Parts: sequence; C-alpha cells; structure tokens
Amino acid sequence: MTKRNGEMKLGVFFQIPGHQIGAWRHPEAGADQVMNFQFIKKLAQTAERGKFDMLFLADHSAVKFTDKTALEQSVNTSFEPFTLLSALSTVTEHIGLVGTVSTTYNEPFHVARRFASLDHLSNGRAAWNVVTSYQEEEARNFNLKKQLLHSTRYQRAEEFVDVVKKLWDSWEDDTLVFDKESAKFADSSKMHEINHNGEWFSVAGPLNIARPIQGHPVVVEAGASEAGKELAARTAEVVFTAWQTLEEAKEFYRDLKGRMAKYGRSPEELKIMPGIYPVIGRTEEEAVENQKLLNNLIPEEAGVALLSRMIGFDLSGYDVDGPFPDVTVENVNAGKSRFQLLKDKADREGLTIRQLYQQIAGARGHREIKGTPEQISDQMQEWYENEAADGFNVMPPYFPGGLDDFVDLVIPILQKRGLFRVEYTGKTLRENLGLKRPANTLVEGRNSVKSII
Amino acid sequence: MTKRNGEMKLGVFFQIPGHQIGAWRHPEAGADQVMNFQFIKKLAQTAERGKFDMLFLADHSAVKFTDKTALEQSVNTSFEPFTLLSALSTVTEHIGLVGTVSTTYNEPFHVARRFASLDHLSNGRAAWNVVTSYQEEEARNFNLKKQLLHSTRYQRAEEFVDVVKKLWDSWEDDTLVFDKESAKFADSSKMHEINHNGEWFSVAGPLNIARPIQGHPVVVEAGASEAGKELAARTAEVVFTAWQTLEEAKEFYRDLKGRMAKYGRSPEELKIMPGIYPVIGRTEEEAVENQKLLNNLIPEEAGVALLSRMIGFDLSGYDVDGPFPDVTVENVNAGKSRFQLLKDKADREGLTIRQLYQQIAGARGHREIKGTPEQISDQMQEWYENEAADGFNVMPPYFPGGLDDFVDLVIPILQKRGLFRVEYTGKTLRENLGLKRPANTLVEGRNSVKSII
Repeated sequence: MTKRNGEMKLGVFFQIPGHQIGAWRHPEAGADQVMNFQFIKKLAQTAERGKFDMLFLADHSAVKFTDKTALEQSVNTSFEPFTLLSALSTVTEHIGLVGTVSTTYNEPFHVARRFASLDHLSNGRAAWNVVTSYQEEEARNFNLKKQLLHSTRYQRAEEFVDVVKKLWDSWEDDTLVFDKESAKFADSSKMHEINHNGEWFSVAGPLNIARPIQGHPVVVEAGASEAGKELAARTAEVVFTAWQTLEEAKEFYRDLKGRMAKYGRSPEELKIMPGIYPVIGRTEEEAVENQKLLNNLIPEEAGVALLSRMIGFDLSGYDVDGPFPDVTVENVNAGKSRFQLLKDKADREGLTIRQLYQQIAGARGHREIKGTPEQISDQMQEWYENEAADGFNVMPPYFPGGLDDFVDLVIPILQKRGLFRVEYTGKTLRENLGLKRPANTLVEGRNSVKSII
Repeated sequence: MTKRNGEMKLGVFFQIPGHQIGAWRHPEAGADQVMNFQFIKKLAQTAERGKFDMLFLADHSAVKFTDKTALEQSVNTSFEPFTLLSALSTVTEHIGLVGTVSTTYNEPFHVARRFASLDHLSNGRAAWNVVTSYQEEEARNFNLKKQLLHSTRYQRAEEFVDVVKKLWDSWEDDTLVFDKESAKFADSSKMHEINHNGEWFSVAGPLNIARPIQGHPVVVEAGASEAGKELAARTAEVVFTAWQTLEEAKEFYRDLKGRMAKYGRSPEELKIMPGIYPVIGRTEEEAVENQKLLNNLIPEEAGVALLSRMIGFDLSGYDVDGPFPDVTVENVNAGKSRFQLLKDKADREGLTIRQLYQQIAGARGHREIKGTPEQISDQMQEWYENEAADGFNVMPPYFPGGLDDFVDLVIPILQKRGLFRVEYTGKTLRENLGLKRPANTLVEGRNSVKSII
C-alpha cells in the first residue's frame, strides 16, 4: 500500500506534563505528577503499547528562564535523563530510551560509560541525543562567565563523539570469558587502551564496562546548521529535525543524505525524523477547539520569554501584537538555524509576536499538524512517501491525554495502511530502527592501537 | 537486652559477584551474572528482606589493573552507580541507595542534580558516598597526566560538597504550587541563585529540579586520614571506615565524634559504620573450611596487584612469601591511611605478602569475622555496645550465597537480641538511619542570597 519499502519509524518526545508551554494548565494534564515516577511509568507503557521505536528526553543544565514571571509560569523541574531512563528500563521491554547529553559540559569517559551501562540495563535499548547546549545560563553553572561560541562548541562535539565511540570499542564483543577453572574472567588481549590525545580531550581508556549490547548505543543528533549537518552526516544515526513545509523537509533530506557518501556511509544508515506536534480532534471542529483551548493556556510573559530564548534574541521590549523586529541572524550566538526558521515563518505568514509564540509554544519550531486522526495520518504518509522523512518524533501537546489520543486514534490508522509496525520485531532499538550493529573500529588491522598490556 | 538505646544500622556493600578478588570463581558465585540486572534485582530484594538500611555501590572511573594477568583474573566490568541505583529504585521500596561519586572528576551541578533525581525517583532513599579517587589510571581518563595531590583533592572535595548542598537548597521545600487557574506552577520567590564563586567552582544555580525529598540525600564518607576526618566531622552523616581491632575502632569513634562540636554538630548526627567481611559457617569447622576455599581462589598475580593498588606502592618485584618491605608512608600518594593500616598489620602479625593479600583480598583492609552466626553476632554486638560502631557495612565474600547466609542466619539473631529492626519504620533512608532532615541553609535570615529575580 505504501510507496516506500519498510515502515516509518516513530519516536515520542517526553516533555512532561506537555510540550506546549502552558499545557500543564490543561484540564487533562498531570501537572502535579511531573516528579512522580508512577505517572511517567504509565506514559512509557502507553508508548510501548503504541509500538513506538523510542521515547526521547531533552535536557538542559539550568532553569529555563531568569525572568520571574516566566519562571513562575513554566515547568522547570524534571528528572535527570540517566536516572529516569534507567528506571524506565525496568518497566518496559521494547521501547528505545533516548537521553540527551551535552558535549559542552561533560566528559567523554562518563558519557560513554553511562550509556554503556544503560544499554546493558535495557538489553540494547539506549540512544544518545548529542547536543552542544545553547543557553547562556548553563555556562554559568559550569565555571564559565559566558558560553563558548557556536563553532567552538561544535569542534568540541566532533572530538567528544569520536572519543565516546572509541571507548565503546575499547572492549571487544567477546572479551568476557567467565572461566572459573583457569581463573580467566576476561581476555585481556581484547581490552584496549585508546590513548586519545586531541585538542579537547586526553583519554587513556579502556572503559570499565563491557562493550554495549548494541555495539554502540544509537547516536541521535538535531543540529540543522552547517556544522550540525556535517557532524550528523559523519556520525548520526537518527536526526531529529524541525521543518514546516514538505519542500523544506525534502530539500534537507536530500542535502543531509547526500553528504554521507564522503564519510563512507550509505543513506539508510541515518534516519531523518522531523518533529510533529499533533493537535487531534475526532472531527475537524474538535481539532480547532482543542487548538484554541491550548493557545489560550499560554501566559503572555512565558510565551515571549520562550520565543526569545529559542531565537537567542530578547523580544520582551517589543509590542507583543506588533511584527517580528528587523534583526538578522548575525546578532545571535545560539540556535542560528531556529532563528532563521522562525523569522522566515513570521515574515512569510505576517505573524505578530503573539501569533508566532502561539504557533511555537507547543511545536517550538517543529511542525504542528491539526486535524482528525485520518488527516494527521495523511500528512505523515505524504512526508514519508515523498522522502521528506524516514519517520517522526511525536510531540504530544500534553500528557497523558495527548499521548493516549495519538496511540489510540492515529497509530491504528498508520498500522492499517502498512505504514507502521503492528509488533516489535527487533531485539534492540538498533534492530527496530533497521540500523546495523557497528563493527569495532579499534580491532587490529582497521585502526591499530596498543593493547593495555 | 542491648546496653545502647536504639538499634544498630546496617549497610550491605554490593561488590558483585563478590568482595574477595577471586570470589567470582566460587562455585556459588554468579560470575557470569555481573551484567545481568535481573540477578542484581534479586540481591537487592534479598537485602530488603533482611531489613538493611542501605545498599552501597563503590565506584572507580578506570579498570582496576594495568597488569595483563591481574586484569584477566579480576572483575572489571560493572554497571555505573546512577544507572543501576535508579533501576533498583523501581524494584525495592525501603532500602537506601548509596552511590559513590568522586569529587575529583565531576562537576557539582551534575552531581547535585542526579542525586536529587534519584531521591525523587526512590521517594527519599538516595545517599552520596563522597570520594576523592586515588587511582592513577582515573586521572588519565580525564585529561590529566597524573592525579592531583591528596591534599589538593581534599580541598576540592570540601568546596564540592558545599556547592552541592547549596544547590539542593536552591529550591525551598514548598516551591511547587501547580495552580492551573492563576498560571502559577512554582513560587519563583522560593527559587534561589546560589552565585557560588570559590577557588574551584563558579556555579550560579538554581538547580533545575525541586529540593530532594530528604532535603539532602544522606552524605556518606570514608576517609580516615586527617583531612578525611575533618571533612567528615563537618559534612558526613555516615562514615564507612575500616578497623581491625576494637581498641582502634573505639579510638576512631571517640576522635571523630569529638571533632563535630566545633562545627556545631552533635555526635548522633553522624553514624560510624565500619566494614565487616563475614565468613559464615554453620559450625566453626565449616567457617574455617569456607575461609580456606576462598583463600585458595585468589590468583597470585591478582592478589599482589590488589595489595599494591590498595597501598599505592608496587609490590610485584618482592618475594610473595617474604615480609612486607621496609617502606614508609611518605613514599605513597594515595590511601595513606590504608597503607599505614596494612603495614602495621603485617608488622604486628608477621605476615608475608601472600598472607597479607589473602587477608585483605576479601575485606580489603576491613575486618574479617569468621565463625558461626552466633559468633559473628557476638562480635558485632561487642563493637556496637562498646561504641566502636553505630552499625556496620556488611561485605559478603560472594553473591548471592554470602548475602543469603547473612540475611538468613545472622540477621535473625541480631533481631532476636533487639539489636536490629524487625520492620522498616521510617519512610526515607534518613528516617531509618535516625538522621534529622536538614533545614534549608539558603533561606533568608540564615545565609542571605539574592533571589533569582
């Protein structure tokens, strides 16, 4: 029935209690459940009932606003990704567990080790969403007065990802022997120092945990800037991206997949999954009503603050019912691609600041799809079949209701059309995504390294 | 029946599949289960059945040996503490979860946040074992050629612990409001920047997670050096320590508790829990046999390497059946207190290197108690009633058998004598340990700070 071989891939973006900045005020949102593991456990089990490939946690190392009112009106407390994903690994069986970790404020040894540990805990379901951070406030929590430049953060990220992969490879797959008789727990000739000495990091290795079940946990990236695209073409296996129109998305898809050959990679080694923010109604009218209800939940100060933070430019001095001001991308040092995307959108559609923040308060630059389950499925099918996407990262407006609706109303249609799985078939996240298990790049002959002895 | 008010506190030290370096070779040790969460889950549930206050994970950020043979003969793969403890939080209800994290290779913001997250996940059962790390190999995984000096590591640790506590206090207890009507999720006047600017760290705060359920997760320390004792007297709530004789332990107990008054603390705010390594037999003869079996499991190279690493001095060139060499504590830059402890022991008891590594291969400087369940209970009672200990950190030689025996044979005797709880009575680890919930030191009037606004 579908024009493409295989099925689309689906992630669900767990921003709890909702993606829309005012969604915690929704009558059906679990606002006071945000620090309750039992609540989040049920959400994960719902996502697994929906056969999602993976659930995704974003991350920041600071509160989101410094403005008193915006701080008060928004949700700034959440579980830290490694602790929450590890807990969720014990109450789910199939769904992938994607944690965001910044390369700007961490050390490769810790990151490689924790993802390896999560991968073993979950029997091969871990994935790392690599980000470079963009909030000024995060720098001030890590001994810096201001954050590193965008380009510098990407240079560090390049090296960081390489070191992490080498550490995952520092134990060969068959290192563990467990031979009680000969007192040989491990074959030490299969444990390798990496002796990395780079511009940013010096790491001897080996890691103190066996090679991950998946070889490497799946590497996810989001950057849509030039630097982000090159890093993704070389290192990413899933790209979470943000596009408003089919044409833009197709162009990005062609562009990014076209960059992979020069790194010796084929296009199917990377899955492009734009975000979608589904506003679902059983009828078109109900969908419009649901959207209105959501828009009216956004407090003005929080809306302006969110938009300002997203584009890296403070809009609080401007008329909220006036046009987007005439500033250019050179004035911002973060989220450059998002700034341009949103400025273009405002200019193209003639939006006021209020209208723009209403549009992005949920989807935050991703695509909002409003309609009946059939209409939403149509749109997803169109993007999938036209190679604008290999799948989607679904961003429910609020939890649990928005997720329940997607699982109960949209997924069955996608399944009926042969666009999405009815049962999990892979044992690991990597298998469910159709990604091959990486070879060990440190084994002799490929990239010779000194053994630890 | 007991001479002291209240009951002793018990921790269990999860070094899987065993504390003794060759214990993975024991017929009843789950050597090939070390990366199997289901195996560790059962151990945690056994410990909870035994009503232990807490289970404890040590940690290092490097493999333990560089010598090929020792590396091969020992267990160098394990889950990382935050990921494992978070997973265990979902399959247990009462037992405290103690994770070791080094202050030398981490950032206070991450550590404060992860322990807060674990505390929320577990409904108030998190504890942080503060260490400064002592392995040369760890430094080489974090951009250093050699590790910082012992004294420098302690200076950094002092400041690190202070910053973490301030971050835990950066949200007052009643910050979260969840008022959908007035769009007030949180009371921003109760969120505080900490604006710490010290010698090692500059951290603005606030944390991006609500104050931990326990106020502060319980702070555990181990250092027995002068610097370690001062840090513990000022900041620790539990001390895991290592003593061989009743007199030494009593002297340490008096010394450490005596140092607390100058920091405005009373002696009961700190629980001193020496490690014990129980070799249990249903009869005395069986205990002797069990000890022999365990000693014979230790491969010679691994034994010498373990001892060398523990004392910070390489013994591999010396006759394994000769005496401990004539070196003094000035020659070592790590584990100074352990070096002295073990050298004293060897000198006092006239032990060869082999005899010494056999004695420490399990208990690793802690006290080995060999005997029947009654005899082991007697020894524990003697230390407890003579104020050599407020409780013990139990180190089973191997898992699961060594833990099963302690829970099934020793705990019931302690309970019958009124020395240990029959049921959990506290809701949090802090309550079970009899430690009070810390006040928020950042609230106005005590230690004025600028609010975030």
